[in-house]
Amino acid sequence: MFRNFKGVEKTAYGRGSFNKLDEILGPHRSSGAGYLIFFVDEYFEGNEEFKTRIPLEENDKLEYISVTEEPTTELIDTLRDKYLTNYGMPAGVVGIGGGSVLDVTKAISLMFTNEGSSTLYQGLNLIKKPGIFACGVPTISGTGAEVSMTAVLTGPEKKLGLKCDWTVLNQIVLDPDLTATVPDNQWFYTGMDNYIHCVESMTGHLKNTFSEAFGFKSLEMSKEVFLELERKDPKSDEMLMVASYMGGLSLTYSEVGVCHALSYGLSMVLHTHHGLANCIAFKELEDVYGDYVGEFNRMVAKHGIELPSNLAAGWSDETIDEMVEVAIKLEHMWNHAFGENWKEVLDRERIKNWYKRM
Amino acid sequence: MFRNFKGVEKTAYGRGSFNKLDEILGPHRSSGAGYLIFFVDEYFEGNEEFKTRIPLEENDKLEYISVTEEPTTELIDTLRDKYLTNYGMPAGVVGIGGGSVLDVTKAISLMFTNEGSSTLYQGLNLIKKPGIFACGVPTISGTGAEVSMTAVLTGPEKKLGLKCDWTVLNQIVLDPDLTATVPDNQWFYTGMDNYIHCVESMTGHLKNTFSEAFGFKSLEMSKEVFLELERKDPKSDEMLMVASYMGGLSLTYSEVGVCHALSYGLSMVLHTHHGLANCIAFKELEDVYGDYVGEFNRMVAKHGIELPSNLAAGWSDETIDEMVEVAIKLEHMWNHAFGENWKEVLDRERIKNWYKRM
Repeated sequence: MFRNFKGVEKTAYGRGSFNKLDEILGPHRSSGAGYLIFFVDEYFEGNEEFKTRIPLEENDKLEYISVTEEPTTELIDTLRDKYLTNYGMPAGVVGIGGGSVLDVTKAISLMFTNEGSSTLYQGLNLIKKPGIFACGVPTISGTGAEVSMTAVLTGPEKKLGLKCDWTVLNQIVLDPDLTATVPDNQWFYTGMDNYIHCVESMTGHLKNTFSEAFGFKSLEMSKEVFLELERKDPKSDEMLMVASYMGGLSLTYSEVGVCHALSYGLSMVLHTHHGLANCIAFKELEDVYGDYVGEFNRMVAKHGIELPSNLAAGWSDETIDEMVEVAIKLEHMWNHAFGENWKEVLDRERIKNWYKRM
Repeated sequence: MFRNFKGVEKTAYGRGSFNKLDEILGPHRSSGAGYLIFFVDEYFEGNEEFKTRIPLEENDKLEYISVTEEPTTELIDTLRDKYLTNYGMPAGVVGIGGGSVLDVTKAISLMFTNEGSSTLYQGLNLIKKPGIFACGVPTISGTGAEVSMTAVLTGPEKKLGLKCDWTVLNQIVLDPDLTATVPDNQWFYTGMDNYIHCVESMTGHLKNTFSEAFGFKSLEMSKEVFLELERKDPKSDEMLMVASYMGGLSLTYSEVGVCHALSYGLSMVLHTHHGLANCIAFKELEDVYGDYVGEFNRMVAKHGIELPSNLAAGWSDETIDEMVEVAIKLEHMWNHAFGENWKEVLDRERIKNWYKRM
């Protein structure tokens, strides 16, 4: 698997680094190229203390992003058109939030310079031009969006990323202070997104020694965070932030697998949030992920998480079939999970059975 | 410790990735901006099979670099002037070799655009302008030069790096096939450079959770390579290459320490090669690095390495004093190793005693 991967250009890690955001963004204003747009998770709307910490200058814009639904191609197109029409081309975009907000930031950076609807660019290397400057500040850990070359969007026809070198953020600011106040459930589901990335990355066919170093280290740190440390231990936020970063880098030379394929079906058809959808799927995958599922269940139990169960009882056959159709199309995930002869071990019936267990 | 660090722009890792060098360099030629210079370790001089694998085009230049002595400011200035006078500004430089060759490549990339002697720029952030495109292909693992923001040069007055964001390579190609044939001694000394980086990085005052994740993972991989695997196991070359990469990144939020300070004295005064100088110093540092020195000795024994001893018997007091003066000036290393009150535990006498044990 040859890949020449683009890295994040600049990385600031550490407690208090969010306070340096003004200084970090300075060089990107100095060309006098225009205003910055700050996309901020709606979670912070109304939090005036937090708002004062965002280094807004006179012409900058602040847009709160709803994360009830995952980012859609329609949202990106609408936002892009609104800003271009009313204020012209910005100098850059800054995302402050979880994976959805970072993906909005990455996608819109590209869509400011690539014409037409973002639906045209869902897939690998379809983007024609580099985007504008994009900075990401995660306020929750686990998505890997801070280092990934994809911005996942749900379109009218598919959930698929704008995936290319230019999707990678120009700057990231990783401040573990920001994740200390994340509500427990979200903290858990998003942390499990990374745990599951790593399990999938480390159990498939495409990995190499580079991805193993990152993936196994990230898994080790995840276990420490979710099975050993107390949530309030400051080390916990620090380790989870680095684990997410490393888990994302592990995927550079690997892929996600069965759980993410099933989870995409749940999100596409039932709008289940990604982190939760992963957990609903992962607990039914002992036939694929073995002891990792037991370890996952211990994490669920330790943190008193009540995962929804018996969901399938409420799903019609049509609903399940629809999810199966979404999942089976994700061939790169099946190829990684089961090897190039994956069609010998996987058919619609097997996928359907996984959904029926949920 | 706040740091907004520049990452390598593009990374290709994997067996056979050296065969993709032509494709990787392509976009940097297409602007028609000029020729490329390939700086290649003299170890490969006369190896015609290897030479045919270097993607030289008509106007490109190939320069073998002697690594008997570490790179000097004089070498950089002379090479830069030679190429500018005879061929004009190149489009980029490609280094194929160990840490010295990578440092030559990084330094000369900067010196093509920054006027005057490289001695003017030895230190932190003294460089005024970004350099030309620079690609590094390590043929030995352990220096960390592939990811570091420094290009260490020995000048008439000091051994000190050109250290700034622009020193970081634009592209690296990490192909474990290239390191399989490194002579055993060099393989060991250079691998120990990384082991010692990590021990120093992980035992001092400046580290944080980010550097710990990289540093401890790199240490774990180093132990596996030097205490468990056989050298001819293909996994060994792969792991050492990733360990070096991670060890280099660990130093982003940390520093080297006592061993490197002493080692710089040895190299500056006696021209001892860096990897060997580190080993000579490290084995005498049990009072600082405790059990790590025992572990290091087991690695030395396992690989049948004969480290020089009783060297100090042949050194005059003046020679030792000269080395002490070089070492004591490296305040950032002492500060990391012993904390900000390092002067309370360190004086010239203590440094002198370490040298006398060698």
